[in-house]
Amino acid sequence: MKRWRITVEYDGTPFVGFQRQTNGPSVQAALEDAIRKFSGETVTVHCAGRTDAGVHALGQVCHFDLDRPREADTVRDAINAHLRPQPVAVLTAEEAAPDFHARISAKGRAYRYRIVNRRAPLAIDGHRAWLVQTPLDAGVMHTAAQRLIGKHDFSTFRASECQAKTPVKTLDALTVTRLGEEIDIEARARSFLHHQVRNMVGTLRLVGEGKWSADDVSEALAARDRARGGPTAPPDGLYLVAVTY
Amino acid sequence: MKRWRITVEYDGTPFVGFQRQTNGPSVQAALEDAIRKFSGETVTVHCAGRTDAGVHALGQVCHFDLDRPREADTVRDAINAHLRPQPVAVLTAEEAAPDFHARISAKGRAYRYRIVNRRAPLAIDGHRAWLVQTPLDAGVMHTAAQRLIGKHDFSTFRASECQAKTPVKTLDALTVTRLGEEIDIEARARSFLHHQVRNMVGTLRLVGEGKWSADDVSEALAARDRARGGPTAPPDGLYLVAVTY
Repeated sequence: MKRWRITVEYDGTPFVGFQRQTNGPSVQAALEDAIRKFSGETVTVHCAGRTDAGVHALGQVCHFDLDRPREADTVRDAINAHLRPQPVAVLTAEEAAPDFHARISAKGRAYRYRIVNRRAPLAIDGHRAWLVQTPLDAGVMHTAAQRLIGKHDFSTFRASECQAKTPVKTLDALTVTRLGEEIDIEARARSFLHHQVRNMVGTLRLVGEGKWSADDVSEALAARDRARGGPTAPPDGLYLVAVTY
Repeated sequence: MKRWRITVEYDGTPFVGFQRQTNGPSVQAALEDAIRKFSGETVTVHCAGRTDAGVHALGQVCHFDLDRPREADTVRDAINAHLRPQPVAVLTAEEAAPDFHARISAKGRAYRYRIVNRRAPLAIDGHRAWLVQTPLDAGVMHTAAQRLIGKHDFSTFRASECQAKTPVKTLDALTVTRLGEEIDIEARARSFLHHQVRNMVGTLRLVGEGKWSADDVSEALAARDRARGGPTAPPDGLYLVAVTY
């Protein structure tokens, strides 16, 4: 038996999320079906980050086991052939150590959240970014974001359905940069709570609009109460960019 | 009567092209229908560049006339409201001089062609870039591209159905740059022949693969014969970026 590690890109729009569910198509089911079709083996695909419905990935990492030995290029190309025309692509495939686990072995996760800040609807980037039509000040958003860096109880930014054992996480980076009408928010941590990035982004939007100050962000964090945080940003703008091991 | 100038973004994928045709939905028909629905006036929309089926625009420029006076913000927002859910958006709307003509007054057009150069299929950028799976050398592509700069008879890169009066055009810029797995080709000229950018890109691909030299490009240009040029690149990667006046 060989353990395989793959890096996966997908457009989350048509999926109920990464994880297999009964209420619609999932990225996990798409991958498991494609692997079964090419190999004849029924596998379970484990991922580094269980992205929600509508959330995208540029560098999701997964693992699974195959009994028969295979060439790495064959694994990548054969899965891709059977994934078509679904918007999921295996970027790389390689053999991994038997104890490699996509989720448990991960040491860091990087997400990007794309905001397009303009009046007009999104013709090219529909479902691929969050359209915010009120003017945002990316500079004050970045300054306020630094209040969230470090080890904190992030209950204010935690979805009620979050299954993490503890709300304490260490946020390594949260940077806000503007290029033209696009504002990108990069978030890095060992791991995140459910909806943490989207809840932080929804809060930073309030700062960018001038409705909240950086002190308001600090107070919301200290309250450890989801009701004190800003609204949840939509999934459309969120990308799992990379996982480090 | 007032003449209006609008800047338009669109995803060309679902359209038969900019121009109204009997065989399917066009950007022109989408705009004219939306303008009629909000204003009650039947207009003809003229554009700066008649993009082909599947070609996108980030900054197409159009003009049309309305009898009744309107606020510029109303024109932009009302057209956008009636365009929904089609992937066409009016970015800006402003009153123009009575003799302004989107096509005839244009002094320059800028196109971008996006290539993604990797093995894996495109999950996020499907229909938005050209996937080239063989390795390309962007440096030699750029060097060869400079052979096309200047005033030439571009018959080698002209579609047979091109209606321009002359095949002589002046190409102001053709730059090839790579960022990671993406290669962007930027082309600027007062105007282009039909398929000229896509035919130049298809030829530069041959150079990037090492099948053609820069001298081959010069000889193809000098032959003034479409049969001597490279194949036509697909529309998916082409964007009309900006029009200058």
